[in-house]
Amino acid sequence: MVSIDINCDMGESFGSYVIGEDEKVIPFITSANIACGYHAGDPLVMAKTVYLAKEHHVGIGAHPGYPDLLGYGRRALQTFPGEIKNYLLYQMGALRAFAEAAGARLRHVKPHGALYNLIAHNEAAAMEAVEAVKAFDPDLFFFILSGSLCAEMAEAFGLRVVQEVFPDRGYLSDGQLAPRGMERAVIHDASAVRTRVIKLVAEGRITSIEGQEIEIKADTLCVHGDTPGAWKLARVIRQAMEETGIEVTAPGKQENK
Amino acid sequence: MVSIDINCDMGESFGSYVIGEDEKVIPFITSANIACGYHAGDPLVMAKTVYLAKEHHVGIGAHPGYPDLLGYGRRALQTFPGEIKNYLLYQMGALRAFAEAAGARLRHVKPHGALYNLIAHNEAAAMEAVEAVKAFDPDLFFFILSGSLCAEMAEAFGLRVVQEVFPDRGYLSDGQLAPRGMERAVIHDASAVRTRVIKLVAEGRITSIEGQEIEIKADTLCVHGDTPGAWKLARVIRQAMEETGIEVTAPGKQENK
Amino acid sequence: MVSIDINCDMGESFGSYVIGEDEKVIPFITSANIACGYHAGDPLVMAKTVYLAKEHHVGIGAHPGYPDLLGYGRRALQTFPGEIKNYLLYQMGALRAFAEAAGARLRHVKPHGALYNLIAHNEAAAMEAVEAVKAFDPDLFFFILSGSLCAEMAEAFGLRVVQEVFPDRGYLSDGQLAPRGMERAVIHDASAVRTRVIKLVAEGRITSIEGQEIEIKADTLCVHGDTPGAWKLARVIRQAMEETGIEVTAPGKQENK
Amino acid sequence: MVSIDINCDMGESFGSYVIGEDEKVIPFITSANIACGYHAGDPLVMAKTVYLAKEHHVGIGAHPGYPDLLGYGRRALQTFPGEIKNYLLYQMGALRAFAEAAGARLRHVKPHGALYNLIAHNEAAAMEAVEAVKAFDPDLFFFILSGSLCAEMAEAFGLRVVQEVFPDRGYLSDGQLAPRGMERAVIHDASAVRTRVIKLVAEGRITSIEGQEIEIKADTLCVHGDTPGAWKLARVIRQAMEETGIEVTAPGKQENK
Repeated sequence: MVSIDINCDMGESFGSYVIGEDEKVIPFITSANIACGYHAGDPLVMAKTVYLAKEHHVGIGAHPGYPDLLGYGRRALQTFPGEIKNYLLYQMGALRAFAEAAGARLRHVKPHGALYNLIAHNEAAAMEAVEAVKAFDPDLFFFILSGSLCAEMAEAFGLRVVQEVFPDRGYLSDGQLAPRGMERAVIHDASAVRTRVIKLVAEGRITSIEGQEIEIKADTLCVHGDTPGAWKLARVIRQAMEETGIEVTAPGKQENK
Repeated sequence: MVSIDINCDMGESFGSYVIGEDEKVIPFITSANIACGYHAGDPLVMAKTVYLAKEHHVGIGAHPGYPDLLGYGRRALQTFPGEIKNYLLYQMGALRAFAEAAGARLRHVKPHGALYNLIAHNEAAAMEAVEAVKAFDPDLFFFILSGSLCAEMAEAFGLRVVQEVFPDRGYLSDGQLAPRGMERAVIHDASAVRTRVIKLVAEGRITSIEGQEIEIKADTLCVHGDTPGAWKLARVIRQAMEETGIEVTAPGKQENK
Repeated sequence: MVSIDINCDMGESFGSYVIGEDEKVIPFITSANIACGYHAGDPLVMAKTVYLAKEHHVGIGAHPGYPDLLGYGRRALQTFPGEIKNYLLYQMGALRAFAEAAGARLRHVKPHGALYNLIAHNEAAAMEAVEAVKAFDPDLFFFILSGSLCAEMAEAFGLRVVQEVFPDRGYLSDGQLAPRGMERAVIHDASAVRTRVIKLVAEGRITSIEGQEIEIKADTLCVHGDTPGAWKLARVIRQAMEETGIEVTAPGKQENK
Repeated sequence: MVSIDINCDMGESFGSYVIGEDEKVIPFITSANIACGYHAGDPLVMAKTVYLAKEHHVGIGAHPGYPDLLGYGRRALQTFPGEIKNYLLYQMGALRAFAEAAGARLRHVKPHGALYNLIAHNEAAAMEAVEAVKAFDPDLFFFILSGSLCAEMAEAFGLRVVQEVFPDRGYLSDGQLAPRGMERAVIHDASAVRTRVIKLVAEGRITSIEGQEIEIKADTLCVHGDTPGAWKLARVIRQAMEETGIEVTAPGKQENK
């Protein structure tokens, strides 16, 4: 049976500051990427979000970012050798403590924002990420951009890679994400996303911005949690999957059956 | 055979800022309390300090503090219910990731500075600390002020409590630490500390500031790492123990024999 | 002619995090207390908020708090001598740069949250605040709790004190603010606030929680900006003042006529 | 009479963390670049450093950096439009408050670390810096890399530019600083620096790494404060200037005579 995961960034509030509608999104997703206090999140938010995910039987994941709360982890930050590896260890460790204290298990990790982009495409950064995950927990599912250099490297080093696709983003014919500034880089029409997602999951293909049919591997679909109304898109995608007879489940969850 | 642990705060550098002489102190101690990035420390420092401790066969411990780098964790900070528990979970989790990535084990936790003082004496704070340790790892050794309310509570709740004494600090006849401002609150003479430590460990007694002999339980002796020259006092204490035939070892290390 | 100021905390967003409805509140107030990057606010938010205030001819003020973004400046933080004075200098200076770069003038300062409470009632803290304002700009209007120790001290030292009253908060018969936990400590009914405010400004009296008429000096009325819908209360108060023939104007603004 | 300024970064301690030997360097310099709390420094350190500079009749300057204490402002950080301008305004304003509270005047600004490098060479960043200084205080002396794009732009926009040379750094024949990794990029021999500085100030020329004589304008010489023993190099340079009959004075100080 064909199956797919739906993931969403969560737990990105900080102190008195609220971002996201976690309670509304959670019924429709199967993996929660929970911020770890660097680009967003704090210990109370982490504890609460872990419980929310557990309650909804959603896979608990770490969502580590740059130490840049002011920039919400979206600004590129120069790093010196070892920094990325150790930033990841720190944040994965912190989140795992909350998962275990809640009687749950940390199942995956997905880097955030500018750090995600760097790790996806830069060899040295990808290598540090691979080393961090291997040293921390080689059974952890590692969510990263489908078809990226990092996805290849992580597989070569034996990690459990989960190829991620952004269903509301345009792709170029070479399989790369269209840059945000570009026309049609973001797809706002829900029914277009619906059609797109069904073909993607059922056939492993997507229509590029240039109009070509391209192959792309999708193990997980990302819904952006910090967009207002994100939960509606999550619902559309979830329903599309269920109506098409595609199982929606976190990576590795089938194994337990 | 009588045995004692010697502990020291470590890994309190931050970025380009250096505090402590960790390499000089480490040969003389058996437990390292490693800062976790809140009051001091950062991921690179944590990784490096964990390796240093491992190399010297010194017990690796988490040293969580208030989120107050500017105040070095020494300023009291009001906390709302749940904050202390979750601050501890966060920091213990972060440090454990470095210990495990280094192929070592997190053995103990000792709160830092103003948070230590609050937890030692305040019932609600002590309860949150006990809950955090139980939820995180009930086998963790919990270092706390000898004879404190928290030491009692933690024992009642089944934690592995390690009673801590400060050999270069004066004690009052009621067993309390003399406040720092008080005369003779800090003992600067190394040979006085030496005599004091031998009696403390061998007989479980100390002479109070008022001149009385009081009983005090010492499972571990604290050497302050951020005082320049701290390593000399650590050496004096270590030698005094060895000359007196007292085994110097981290809590639980004998169990492994 | 009787006149009154209406002030509101503003510019408390931070990076991607939004708090408050500054654009909705600003038409109804005459003084804006702008966060300075310690408990809330950042340089872009400060620049934008200063322009917003200038555009609406609203007095620009600094709103310094504790360096505790995580706690939003609402948690008491132990400070050592000199810290409060220098925290205030730092934040007032930062905000003044934005005011002047916008061709405007910094008119007032009002401490935030837990720092406000400490300065209002604690003599040493009040003294540091007075010193900071005197050294920074002795012409600055200093907003502080009506009838507080600090209000008295600041007047004695020649500062331009603006006595602040919280119209939606209950007062005890001794003139103190009722603690938030207490019944009727917060008044949610807008028409009750309206009645209360008119008597307060016109007669200088308020009915205490115990039912007594007490005298209280009100130079400025505080509207809490971080409560959703705060702008409605601001509008009620503004209209009440205008209907009663009371001029609503920032301190010192009449002088310019 | 030929004159030159000698500047040094100062006030880069933070809380309990100490960097630099400000008291040892200060007798030999004429301009102090004081950290403003972003990459280093805190309100107490700023207050203390301003007093130290004032006492030694050394020009007080702001030394703004990226908001990256962990990276000490040395890591490139992506910024979005307006961020650099507002980061500079914030930090200059904060430092000016301390200067004025001490009865002194803020005389100059010199960006720090990675922000300095960006502003020196990147047109958009340079433009934001020019706008920030013009809006803040058009009379402020603006210290920037000699011969850089930013130096040109700032002069074109009417700022009082002070061209900075690094006497212990190698220069390429095109007038650019040799990258730190390169051989002979840093000159460790004090007598070589001495010879170099005399020729530079007296003749406006320096020998490049490739051995060519190149022209370079030097209004101020930078001594790095965070290198241990920096004060010795400062003394060598100061003495070389005085022995050669070159007046050592902060920019604009002669005007006062």
